[in-house]
Amino acid sequence: MKLYDDTLAPNPRRVRIFLAEKGISVPLVQVEIIKGEHKTPEMRALNPAGTWPLLELDDGTRLTETVAICRYFELIQPDPPLMGRTPLEAAQVEMWQRRMEFELFMPIALSFRHLAPPMAKLETQIKDFGLVNKARAEKRLERLNDELAAKPFIAGDSYSIADITAMCAIDFGKYARIPVDDSLTHVKDWYARVSTRPSAKA
Amino acid sequence: MKLYDDTLAPNPRRVRIFLAEKGISVPLVQVEIIKGEHKTPEMRALNPAGTWPLLELDDGTRLTETVAICRYFELIQPDPPLMGRTPLEAAQVEMWQRRMEFELFMPIALSFRHLAPPMAKLETQIKDFGLVNKARAEKRLERLNDELAAKPFIAGDSYSIADITAMCAIDFGKYARIPVDDSLTHVKDWYARVSTRPSAKA
Repeated sequence: MKLYDDTLAPNPRRVRIFLAEKGISVPLVQVEIIKGEHKTPEMRALNPAGTWPLLELDDGTRLTETVAICRYFELIQPDPPLMGRTPLEAAQVEMWQRRMEFELFMPIALSFRHLAPPMAKLETQIKDFGLVNKARAEKRLERLNDELAAKPFIAGDSYSIADITAMCAIDFGKYARIPVDDSLTHVKDWYARVSTRPSAKA
Repeated sequence: MKLYDDTLAPNPRRVRIFLAEKGISVPLVQVEIIKGEHKTPEMRALNPAGTWPLLELDDGTRLTETVAICRYFELIQPDPPLMGRTPLEAAQVEMWQRRMEFELFMPIALSFRHLAPPMAKLETQIKDFGLVNKARAEKRLERLNDELAAKPFIAGDSYSIADITAMCAIDFGKYARIPVDDSLTHVKDWYARVSTRPSAKA
């Protein structure tokens, strides 16, 4: 088994943190997206969808999509659970994972893609759309602050994949110039809690 | 248990089809999004995220996010499986569901939101962004045609939630003026296969 990775990209990081929390070690193959290494004919053949990371199993089966790769590891090694244990917990974790993905991670990523000067060579940038997404992410952080007033982790009492998605979104936000304002104390406290876990360095 | 629904919106439809395939019947409460009924103070209190559909359990617990709601039903009633049975199948179905969601459903939805005249009152429309997404959806349909040359369903041999997402995307595409071109015969054949299942009318 091996994981095609890029230490600079936020999605591969979500999988590395997930694996670190599980205590699972998978050999990594580095592919530098910023240098266009994911678009070589060899990589295109391996991964026609062109999305990163990519997990290759020993029989050659390949999986893409961050959360699908995490699901695979969750099911082959359920402990510690990062995607909920009961049907209701699993649904609640998935709900919060998706909220953080659609409402925080994506607006931050879209803001970066459409506003950051180095991205102009990879993307047709539409500045107005970048600004809409920046504002959307900032507003979502304020709402997240209210949500975190009453619970230690994004999905409730336990650390989960939803925390991984949100933490990686916020760290990505530093590059997208979307910092967490000091007034958002619940987000700051939660961030301190999750970012000091050893897995955050994965 | 009850499901807050809107017969005109594509996401509630994904859940209705999922339930029909499972043979599960849940009372529906109609909320007309186009009339702004999801933004009344009563509905805002019920569903602060404002996303649709919403499942309310008998104990008052509320779930949003289409795929999280589907996951709940998959786990409480695994048969027939719509999200894969083994760990690898589950990961593959999730991978394809996400591909169809991010690469087809979303570009179609974004194209509709940013180009359709009736949406101007709900959204700050950015025409260029709508056009980028229309082109992205059209290109993805061409790639889907190649993918479906070798398999009967989106995720492989079995009908799954990935087919539901893709079919609802394509039906939504009719409103977004993104039809499936007649040359895409594998997509047409697959569409005939999934859209004639009784669940498609749910």
